[in-house]
Order: sequence, then C-alpha cells, then structure tokens
Amino acid sequence: MKVLIVHAHPEPQSFTAALRDQALATLQGQGHEVQVSDLYAMQWNPVASAADFATRENPDYLVYALEQRLGVKNQSIAADIQGELDKLLWADLLILNFPIFWFSAPAMLKGWIDRVLVSGVCYGGKRFYDQGGLAGKRALVAVTLGGREHMFGEGTIHGPLEEMLRPILRGTLAYVGYDVLAPFVAWHVPYISAEARQDFLLGYEQRLQGLADEQPLVFPKLAQFDEALYPLS
Amino acid sequence: MKVLIVHAHPEPQSFTAALRDQALATLQGQGHEVQVSDLYAMQWNPVASAADFATRENPDYLVYALEQRLGVKNQSIAADIQGELDKLLWADLLILNFPIFWFSAPAMLKGWIDRVLVSGVCYGGKRFYDQGGLAGKRALVAVTLGGREHMFGEGTIHGPLEEMLRPILRGTLAYVGYDVLAPFVAWHVPYISAEARQDFLLGYEQRLQGLADEQPLVFPKLAQFDEALYPLS
Repeated sequence: MKVLIVHAHPEPQSFTAALRDQALATLQGQGHEVQVSDLYAMQWNPVASAADFATRENPDYLVYALEQRLGVKNQSIAADIQGELDKLLWADLLILNFPIFWFSAPAMLKGWIDRVLVSGVCYGGKRFYDQGGLAGKRALVAVTLGGREHMFGEGTIHGPLEEMLRPILRGTLAYVGYDVLAPFVAWHVPYISAEARQDFLLGYEQRLQGLADEQPLVFPKLAQFDEALYPLS
Repeated sequence: MKVLIVHAHPEPQSFTAALRDQALATLQGQGHEVQVSDLYAMQWNPVASAADFATRENPDYLVYALEQRLGVKNQSIAADIQGELDKLLWADLLILNFPIFWFSAPAMLKGWIDRVLVSGVCYGGKRFYDQGGLAGKRALVAVTLGGREHMFGEGTIHGPLEEMLRPILRGTLAYVGYDVLAPFVAWHVPYISAEARQDFLLGYEQRLQGLADEQPLVFPKLAQFDEALYPLS
C-alpha cells in the first residue's frame, strides 16, 4: 500500500508530530511505502490565488475551480500544487494529521485542501461522493485536541466530534470519493502525562495495524438522488 | 453600532465582494460605523506560527494558545494580529463574508480566525460559549456557494448547510461568546443571471436593515453543565 501523511503543526516537537512518526514507523514496518508532506517544514503556501496559474483561461476574472481544471490539463498549475497532487494520486491511503484549531484544521492544512484537491481531477460535475475522483482510496484523520473526551458526543457541551469535523470528513474527503475511516483522536493532549501520551501512541499503532479490516463511515451515494440531485423515493 | 466586515475572496470583482460592498453601503446608510478587513487585499498571513510572538514564554516549545495569552498581555504579539484584534474588540457586529471552499472558509479566513481570536481575550478557562470573551456582540456569516438550495437541508445530498458550517457558527463564533445570527446564503452564484444576483443583493440589504430585530441561533450555555463540564440534569 502507498500512504501519504499530510502533517500540519507549528511546533516540530509536538505530540502531533509523534503521531506522524508513529504512523510512518508502523506503516513502513508493515511494508507499505510512505511519503510525508510536513506543511510547516515545507513552508507550504496555503493561499489559493491567481498566482497558482501560469496562464489563465480568463485573466480578467478568477474562477478558481475553472482555472484549476485547465491548469491541470495544460500543466500550467503551480509546481507546489502539482507536486502535492502527484503524491495524492499516488497514495492508496491519505492520512491528515493535525491539531484541532477551532474545531477544524489549521489554516495551513485547509490551504492544502483548497489548492491541492483540484477540480477536474478530484471532483467535478457529477463526480463527487462515491463517484468522486479519488474513489477506491481510503482516508484517515488523526487529530490532537485540548478538550476531554466527555465534552464530545451526543448531549455533551460540544456535541459529537464527527459533527464538528463534518466539513472535512464528509464535505471534503467523502466528497472526493475517499472511503473515510473513523477519526483517531488523542484527547486533552496539552494537559496529560507522558504515560498517557504513550498510551495514545500505542493505541494508534494498534489501530494502524488493523486498518485493513476497518469499515469506512457511511455517506451519501449519488444513486440515492436523481439527475438534479433531488433525493429519490 | 460599530461593524467589522472580514472579507476573503481571491477575485476582487467577485459577487462575494459585491455582498461586502452592499453591507458597507447599507450599514453606513443606517448611520453605523463600518471597518472592512479585505484579507486578500491586505495580503493577510494566515499561518499561525512561532513568528507571531516577538518574545516567548517558552522559546523551546511552542504552545500557541499559551503564547497568545502572554503575547497580548505583554504587547509582544505580531502587529498584524494586534491590529485585527483591536478591530474585533471595537466592533459590536462581526460579519464574515466569504465563498464556501470545501464546505467551510477559505484558508485565508481560517488563518484570520486561528491568529486573531486570541486565547485570554476571546476565550480561556471557563470563558466560552455564553461566557466567552466576546459575549454581548453579534456575528453574521454571509456566504456564496456553487451548490443549489435544494442540495442542502434535512434529507438532501449535502444535509443542512448549518451543519456543514458548525465549526464556524458554533465552534468558533458562538464559542467566543457571539450571538450568532442565521447565515445569509447566496446559492449557485457562478451559474446565475445578473438579475438573480441583484435579487440576492436586495435580499441581503433587506436582511441587514432588519438585523436589529433578529433572534440569534441557540447554542449551549455553561449553566447547563457542571464544573467538569458534564451535562446537568
């Protein structure tokens, strides 16, 4: 299996980085090929802009998704985007590894999503959800956060974490066709002992070792909707 | 009333920019003071990093929220963050004005949230949700998107838009104490006629004129939870 880990944390020694390294070691130990995109270390540019296209279909008015489609076709999309897109298409498994900032991804990672999941390749027209361009691949979100586990779930103060992560799990990963696995979550990280952190690493290792047998989360399928995307039945 | 409009769109002539200008004109016409932060025009830096702090409590290991708390207290936080924070605290109403990218905010705006909503001022300890640092202020999200209205809501292909926007509406704006109004949404924007766009502008103008009478969305209150944030009752 080929694996791409996209990691975004401003502190190189963070526990989130330890999760990245755990995934790298465990997956390589199983014989998989692994590439890592460490967005802070790469000084990734997260800002989608006109500068992403060497030539433009419409130089006077930027429709970003349209220029993405043409830029990929004409190989005129920015080199940093093309490099990440090549890794994305190479990988059978995508792992997004990040600390929760405001119940979602840091801007650094959001900008990787904005720029790399290009229209015309990852999605477009009726190619989304189970018909998305990355169908057949799997995705895992691995996150660290400050909150305690009892603050998340039905009836809790923040509600289910999966609902907070909905734009990523469903609106992004499932949208482009990935089979999305349940997130791996390390809770309360800034406040816990070294032993508790070790337990999370061990739990992550075990999770990764059994990943092949996991069932993905369930999301809509296009066959449940008509041509205009109204629900059938 | 004092209003801050935070606008993020890579195309200066976009319809999203027209919504920004509509809000500016309507609110100024009502006698309100309005400031606009146009993040692309400002070349805003969306990346939260160690460079945001001239001096550090811990130069060897970055805990971003901790350095935010100290940076604001010591006035050693980056000047661009302090400038935006000053506007945020000045404003009675915050409008986030953006195109939906991946069912959430463009990285440019996410990075404004990551860097400007500083710990110790906007939230911290038990100061969140109705006890958040910005309690008493109101917030409105105004968005454009490509999807059609019938693709959003219960039982539809994407589900309710408010659920996709949950990390922003609840996890960010309500979290720091804002009374959050229902989003203003312009649907299917890249594909509609000039007349249909004009209708959205008119609808937005009318909405803004009646804003004072609107009831905010309902989110958790800390009084519903015990000291450890377990639900009471």
